[in-house]
Amino acid sequence: MPAISTKGRLMPPSPIRKLVPFAEAAKGRGTKVIHLNIGQPDIASPDVALDAIRHLDRTVIEYSHSAGYESYRKGLATYYAQHGIMVDHDHIIVTNGGSEALLFGMMACFEPGDEVIIPEPFYANYNSFAMAAGVTVVPVRSTIESGFALPPIEAFEALITKRTKGILICNPGNPTGYLYSAAELDTLRDIVKRHDLFLFADEVYREFCYDGARHISAMTLKGIEENVVLIDSVSKRYSMCGARVGAFITRNKELYAAVLKFAQARLSPPTFGQIASEAALRTPKSYFDAVASEYKQRRDILVNGLNTIPGVICPTPKGAFYCVAQLPIDDSDRFCQWLLESFAFDGYTVMMAPATGFYAQPATGRQQVRLAYVLEQPLLAKAVECLRKALMEYPGVPAGTPKATSAAG
Amino acid sequence: MPAISTKGRLMPPSPIRKLVPFAEAAKGRGTKVIHLNIGQPDIASPDVALDAIRHLDRTVIEYSHSAGYESYRKGLATYYAQHGIMVDHDHIIVTNGGSEALLFGMMACFEPGDEVIIPEPFYANYNSFAMAAGVTVVPVRSTIESGFALPPIEAFEALITKRTKGILICNPGNPTGYLYSAAELDTLRDIVKRHDLFLFADEVYREFCYDGARHISAMTLKGIEENVVLIDSVSKRYSMCGARVGAFITRNKELYAAVLKFAQARLSPPTFGQIASEAALRTPKSYFDAVASEYKQRRDILVNGLNTIPGVICPTPKGAFYCVAQLPIDDSDRFCQWLLESFAFDGYTVMMAPATGFYAQPATGRQQVRLAYVLEQPLLAKAVECLRKALMEYPGVPAGTPKATSAAG
Repeated sequence: MPAISTKGRLMPPSPIRKLVPFAEAAKGRGTKVIHLNIGQPDIASPDVALDAIRHLDRTVIEYSHSAGYESYRKGLATYYAQHGIMVDHDHIIVTNGGSEALLFGMMACFEPGDEVIIPEPFYANYNSFAMAAGVTVVPVRSTIESGFALPPIEAFEALITKRTKGILICNPGNPTGYLYSAAELDTLRDIVKRHDLFLFADEVYREFCYDGARHISAMTLKGIEENVVLIDSVSKRYSMCGARVGAFITRNKELYAAVLKFAQARLSPPTFGQIASEAALRTPKSYFDAVASEYKQRRDILVNGLNTIPGVICPTPKGAFYCVAQLPIDDSDRFCQWLLESFAFDGYTVMMAPATGFYAQPATGRQQVRLAYVLEQPLLAKAVECLRKALMEYPGVPAGTPKATSAAG
Repeated sequence: MPAISTKGRLMPPSPIRKLVPFAEAAKGRGTKVIHLNIGQPDIASPDVALDAIRHLDRTVIEYSHSAGYESYRKGLATYYAQHGIMVDHDHIIVTNGGSEALLFGMMACFEPGDEVIIPEPFYANYNSFAMAAGVTVVPVRSTIESGFALPPIEAFEALITKRTKGILICNPGNPTGYLYSAAELDTLRDIVKRHDLFLFADEVYREFCYDGARHISAMTLKGIEENVVLIDSVSKRYSMCGARVGAFITRNKELYAAVLKFAQARLSPPTFGQIASEAALRTPKSYFDAVASEYKQRRDILVNGLNTIPGVICPTPKGAFYCVAQLPIDDSDRFCQWLLESFAFDGYTVMMAPATGFYAQPATGRQQVRLAYVLEQPLLAKAVECLRKALMEYPGVPAGTPKATSAAG
């Protein structure tokens, strides 16, 4: 039997999905599992998108242009302009989700062995795409004490080597929900410009900002127009994760041409998903207002609730629909598995993503978990109750840690 | 401005799509372009698949399991069993088309620098996936004189080195339409077994066999069960190229687990496409019979027609819906471009894929083109007329070549 490749062996399993077998076993025992592990919203996709699918008038489901339907790309350009992002349709390549945009971008920009600096904790699958492209992830640590703000410019400068070729940010951030300020983005622009790096900006959560905060796109930064790559997706915007429609966007013509060759090799992004996504461009503002308001309430229930549990620290995110919480535990992988294997409260347990998968060095996230607040409010309240109870019962609490008490609730 | 990567520079443009700007210009001048360049059938997708989409009853378009919906994978296992391919649903990972199955497979099986032997001419995008994975393609030449039969075992043995890690076949073949015999597959099995290689078998055209010929899957070969990777796709089977639903299939548990990690990183295959593909499993046999009969008639019109043009050689394919023809020309890239830029007959011209893109060394295919017979019969007859005329007019005919004459038709 031939051996599989080094990449095949070393590719990390998804921290978001690796506990699925334990969750299935828990469900098999009759326990209800509250899924805070994955950013799969329960919000309805826009009617206008679903109606376009239901009124499909084609008889042959053909390939589209490798860069996506031109009409959809033109519609996207208009959508971006409404968000202050000035791009043409021929700066856009429609992709199989944001995932493919990241993979193509990494392969087209970076040599195997090149280094990309990523503020951590970061979206776990960045490790996977980097592994696939042979790219070395160099983490720059943001801390829970600072609410996961951008590390100071000196922290970046200290990491720059001859192999540094890019910086990758997620804004608003998955997993932290952190929203970068104008000053922080200016800091990034300065580093990118000084060292002539690519700046990958994953902005798939731009619609989800709270407390009056406003998202600023990396595409608006002056002086690095050819350096910026925008990674986008309809997955979260329209609660349409399964459409698998994203976008790779750059004003850099040479890079665009290179990524288009990767796109041609896989022929076409999905036709059905593009039909739904093009129709979704007509989603009324009221949909987004309602969704953002709902997420804000969910955030408040989850984050405020977590912060009432002794020993738990959870900064309040200004964007996206995730938070990272520090828990009084020995090991988040063990705790998350224990929740599924050995715990239930009132017939419920909670599934979370251990933060170990969101750091370049897993040990850094050993006391942290990522939680997605994409479920309805009563379930989130129930999840907080479960966690409070679980932290009282969990045997793996480090010595000297104050035990959670029900009185704190 | 930062430099793009070596892969980004060297990735080959699609030979199937690279002439698109010239085709668009021709259409702009009012010329009708007959698209023989791309395997985009004009056959209707099965009603049962389109109806499933039109009756969509979901309100949230969610991610599926990273390996695809379990119900779809179970349905696929039944479909394969009907074709003599005995696999379980947990041997199957649903992918974004056959393209993603190939890319994941190459990354999971091969180290950068490993060699994969591919009978040429071969599907052009194999070069692209190999480039993305850092794999070296080692061609073993099949010739138009032998009708593109599998080269003898000695030709393979002569190419085996310490870096040889796999063989990749397409059966029935794109671009040649060649269908491997049981004896040829036994030859492949012997080489694979002797050198413990992976055997990638791209069998996306299995439904399209003519003249009573029968497709034999590599998955039925004895003694190499852990070595075989089946690459599949619904694109051609159901004339549903835009669904972007394929499959990576292996009985090798270690390899399966590795590819599943790549699949987890990109979260999910397309939901809409899976709904259509699962419904398409109920496509009646009459659909396939009608389609195969139609393709056979199209093949006969195109291939028989081509063979009446002086200086043209085109073996009659037994499967798929492509053929490779040798033409009395100096350079197929130039000829195909000339057809779009400078030629029209009766308001029509023909777009073909230069075969240069289907060989590891482009020069080998300089006098050959790939044609897809996926259009209705009158258009194919018109295409033959156009080519006959074009070969009379084309200035780049090598000296000493007999000129085509209209009398030959």
